[in-house]
Parts: sequence; structure tokens; C-alpha cells
Amino acid sequence: MSTRTIKVIKDILESNDLIAAENRSKFENAGALAINIIGSPGSGKTSLILQTIKALQHKKKIGVIEGDVAGDIDTKRVLAGGAEDAVQINTGGNCHLEARMVRQAMQNINLNALDIIFIENVGNLICPNHWSLGEAIKLCLISVAEGDDKPIKYPEIFAASDVIVLTKNDLIAHVDFNKEFFYESLRALNPTAPLLEISSRTGDGIQGWSGWLVDQCAQKRKS
Amino acid sequence: MSTRTIKVIKDILESNDLIAAENRSKFENAGALAINIIGSPGSGKTSLILQTIKALQHKKKIGVIEGDVAGDIDTKRVLAGGAEDAVQINTGGNCHLEARMVRQAMQNINLNALDIIFIENVGNLICPNHWSLGEAIKLCLISVAEGDDKPIKYPEIFAASDVIVLTKNDLIAHVDFNKEFFYESLRALNPTAPLLEISSRTGDGIQGWSGWLVDQCAQKRKS
Repeated sequence: MSTRTIKVIKDILESNDLIAAENRSKFENAGALAINIIGSPGSGKTSLILQTIKALQHKKKIGVIEGDVAGDIDTKRVLAGGAEDAVQINTGGNCHLEARMVRQAMQNINLNALDIIFIENVGNLICPNHWSLGEAIKLCLISVAEGDDKPIKYPEIFAASDVIVLTKNDLIAHVDFNKEFFYESLRALNPTAPLLEISSRTGDGIQGWSGWLVDQCAQKRKS
Repeated sequence: MSTRTIKVIKDILESNDLIAAENRSKFENAGALAINIIGSPGSGKTSLILQTIKALQHKKKIGVIEGDVAGDIDTKRVLAGGAEDAVQINTGGNCHLEARMVRQAMQNINLNALDIIFIENVGNLICPNHWSLGEAIKLCLISVAEGDDKPIKYPEIFAASDVIVLTKNDLIAHVDFNKEFFYESLRALNPTAPLLEISSRTGDGIQGWSGWLVDQCAQKRKS
């Protein structure tokens, strides 16, 4: 029976990759930089989006696809925070977004009006990494409150990410987080991805992060 | 095809429940109180276990089954912290423990020598809730650093838990966490489960939590 199960799951993943490729073409044709944001519950995904919208308010038009098991609290937040457009996906019990869900959400967004589209995945450091959504950038978020051992415990996502953002840096004095240990174990998995340190609460590091993001938009246009 | 997929998954879940029932009998026959600890990555699962071992060091013999995607860092920690026995399960890419994994781990532990056995699930607020391990108590852990909106976003685990522990309470002054909002949304999902507030860093609340746990052991013996 296990062989049959694996077969079915493989079929689903292959079909996901086909839809992801279609999503990718649509994002690229519209000139919208798509970013898949993956992190634990409460790692600061929505806060990063809100700070980015604020930092780039007269420079970039930003849309958001919000993925949650339940509720629409984050979509309300990003619309109140100045997002150009936002759509909520509720996954039911599903622990990750899939390309078909994003395809459906894209039908309700005018991609041509956007420079950047954030896809906030369900809070989970494991399964979202297995499902491509057609994004240009896979971003992994981790807060200092989660501890410095996360790359050792969840290696796949840290190895696969294009950029890593360390959040809640304002809490560093109040938690046991050894940055040297964190950097070393992260670099053993992923030697090259940029690592940006931020605090959405104080605003520290948001300018550096937003600048990096604007550069990605420019590079995308050139390529 | 989707019908076929659901069929296969249902078979797997049914088989999981059968193994979970066997695990439950073994825990009960040995007189070991089994606690399935579920929480996000970095919510403080291992720290709670370590503090409990310390608080009950001359009163209760405690064993630990550690579930992680990769690594054995937590098993080393709890053994160094005074656990009577500990076994590591590495799930590979799997985002949750299953009853068959726990059954295998149990073969390497002398249950008769234990009063309490903690089963630390993989860091994930979603999928672990779908898989019974044969535990007597399902414990959900959430840190104040994760934010007060977690019950709204991840309702299933909060509704299903027998006890909820709010961790990292020492950070409350440094994060935006509205306790009234948290309690209200939690109580809408789960009106009766005890909610204990702790800080593993300062030790606040550990005595109350350990006392509650000792009571559970006593009640178990009576029933």
C-alpha cells in the first residue's frame, strides 16, 4: 500500500509543478516580482509585509496573497496597511499553499497593476518548502525568539531559500540566541543566500531589506 | 483521482488509530502518563520539558521521546538535564509524528521505570493534531512572541487540546500580545482546558504547571 501512496503523491507534486510553471509565466509577463514567504506561526511574516508596504509606499505597488488555515485577519491588516490589492486563501486543514490555490487567487488580482506580490504561506517551516507556487524568490523568515537551533532542526527550508530574514531582532537581549552558532549552522546549509536582520517593531533593518527588494525588482526587469 | 487519494489517506489514518490504541494500552499498563506536546518551532517545548524534569527531580521519573525532522540536539539536552531515558525520532521530511514512529521508540524505553513520558512532536501547529499517538494528554504550547492571533489562525489544535501552556511570559512587556483578546478567542474554541502561563527562562509558573502535572498522575492512578 505504501508504494501506491507514494505514486499518488508523486502525481500530485508533478501536477503542482505544472501549475506553478504557469503561475510563474503569468507573474513574469505582468512584471510582478512574486515572493513566497515561509516561516513558523508568529515569526513575523505579516509584520514584514506591513513594514515593506510602508517603506515603499510611493515607490512600488504591492499586492498580497494571504494563506491561512482559517480566518482573514491578515488580509484585513494588509489592506488597512496600504496594500494595493489582497486576497485570502483559507486552506481548511491544509498545512501549506499549493500552486492551484495561488492560481485561483491570481484570478482575483490585477497583476499588471503590481510591482511586487507577496504570497504569505501558512505558518509552517516544513511542508511549504515542498510545494512550488511559481514564485521568483523563496524567502524564509525566523525570529530570534524561536531560537538559534532552527537551521539544524529544519534544514530543508534554510538550504532551499533565496533569502533569509531574521526577525524580532529587538528581542535579542531578552532571549538565548547565539548569533555565531546560528550563522555557522545556516552557512553550512546555505553559503550564499543573503541574510537580513530586522525588527518590525522598531523598524531597524527595514530600509536595508526594502533596498534589497527594490534591487531585485530592477534586476528582474533587466534579465 | 482525488477520491482515490482521500481513500488512501483514510486507510493510513485508520491504521494510525489502531497503533495509537496499542500504544495507549502499553502506556497505561506501565503506569506512565504520556503527554503529546504540540507547538510551533521555537515555542519552548524542550525548555518546558527541561524545567519540569528539574522541578520534579526527586518526585517523578520522566522519559522523553523527541520528534524532529533532523538532528538529535534535544535528546542530548534532556538527557543532560536529568531525563531518566530519552529516544530521538527523526522523521526525515515528515512534519508530524505518527503512532508507528512512537511504537518503535517505545521499544527502546523501559516504560515501567517511568511516571511521565513526554512525546515532543515536530514543531508544527497543524498536522500533529491529526495523528493520535496514544497519549493521555494533548498539550498545546504557544509563546507570547508568536502573537495573540494564533487561536484564530490555527483553531483545530486549540480546540482539541486537553491543556494549553502559554510560554515566554517574561517577554510580554516587549511584544504586542493582548491577553484579553487571546483568552477570548481561545475560550470560544475551548471553554474548559486549563491554561497555564509560564516562563522557562525565569521559572515563573513552573511550580503551578508541575503541580498540575503531579495531580494528573494521581488522578490517572485512581481511575
